[in-house]
Amino acid sequence: MIIKGSDINIRTRGFSDICDITGQVETAVREAGISEGIVNIHIIGSTASVSTIEYEPALVQDMKDKLEQFAPHDMPTRHGDTWGDDNGFSHIRATMMGPGITVPVTNGEVLLGTWQQIIVIDHDNRPRDRRIFVQVIGA
Amino acid sequence: MIIKGSDINIRTRGFSDICDITGQVETAVREAGISEGIVNIHIIGSTASVSTIEYEPALVQDMKDKLEQFAPHDMPTRHGDTWGDDNGFSHIRATMMGPGITVPVTNGEVLLGTWQQIIVIDHDNRPRDRRIFVQVIGA
Amino acid sequence: MIIKGSDINIRTRGFSDICDITGQVETAVREAGISEGIVNIHIIGSTASVSTIEYEPALVQDMKDKLEQFAPHDMPTRHGDTWGDDNGFSHIRATMMGPGITVPVTNGEVLLGTWQQIIVIDHDNRPRDRRIFVQVIGA
Repeated sequence: MIIKGSDINIRTRGFSDICDITGQVETAVREAGISEGIVNIHIIGSTASVSTIEYEPALVQDMKDKLEQFAPHDMPTRHGDTWGDDNGFSHIRATMMGPGITVPVTNGEVLLGTWQQIIVIDHDNRPRDRRIFVQVIGA
Repeated sequence: MIIKGSDINIRTRGFSDICDITGQVETAVREAGISEGIVNIHIIGSTASVSTIEYEPALVQDMKDKLEQFAPHDMPTRHGDTWGDDNGFSHIRATMMGPGITVPVTNGEVLLGTWQQIIVIDHDNRPRDRRIFVQVIGA
Repeated sequence: MIIKGSDINIRTRGFSDICDITGQVETAVREAGISEGIVNIHIIGSTASVSTIEYEPALVQDMKDKLEQFAPHDMPTRHGDTWGDDNGFSHIRATMMGPGITVPVTNGEVLLGTWQQIIVIDHDNRPRDRRIFVQVIGA
């Protein structure tokens, strides 16, 4: 049984910037050397999310538009009023979508559809350096 | 330690068709032969989701109505304009809800509430044959 | 390899009451005695969710307000009409957010940001005693 954790570090632009990290996750799984198991991808922090999408520019913008409609970047929040952070909307988007996903690994490959990529969505209201932790468990 | 993957294959009707796969997941766990562990249920593809619900027809329709309200099937999308797919709404629903869940197994059973079933929601805009991968890890 | 399951029992107030269970999850991980691995946190029942948030009162209220806006507690539902439960909104919120999350454990610690806590959101329309199952897998 192998357990192998590693970091993915990315630079994001905020406002639900959507970053494709599929390649880095695949590298982490390959380096762990498992054939069968799972990989958990988890964002450290409370203003970003992990999911999957068909990563093409038109749809990426559609998704950002929907998140803006769901919780607009200028919505009034108690969080903003209290702490002056102006990123209440980011937290709401992040809590709604959740902090991570777990994807199966089989035959040494992360099991995704052809048009399905693993993404980090950074909802925060500014560019950030983000650390994502990838935990591979299997054999 | 046991790691056992298997497929569930279903036929869906699209437009956030909600399918109860609890029985198939329970079968996969039983066939893996673990007593304690987890089961990860993951949809391959970017226009469907996995979650849990009290699977009864009235609520299933309520959930479909809410998804239709959240991202209407005829909403204009850049994805549709660019690729002519007409399923931008499906992608948005899927990315919002995520591609999978992980549920504990204890005493040989998938741990769910009495009124809690595991479901696949196919958001796409047509009937599809869907492959769901179930990864069981435990002992 | 260690697999160790345990219960967290809490009393909630319903209507998307948000409860911080980070301390209890950390205790479960410590008692399991692993250094590297994952912890799966799963709610038993179909009217509650698990996610992460910066757990401070202003933001907690913002999140409750957003869920109320997304699926109001007095929205008409077929579920309510059929069963007289009056908690259709709770089910919809719960299915949208999902029943659980999986978080990495490294160096013996649950890997969270400083302002990131693990929460149960009880969407039901009344106070409830809730059982959350925590499954720790690792070494």
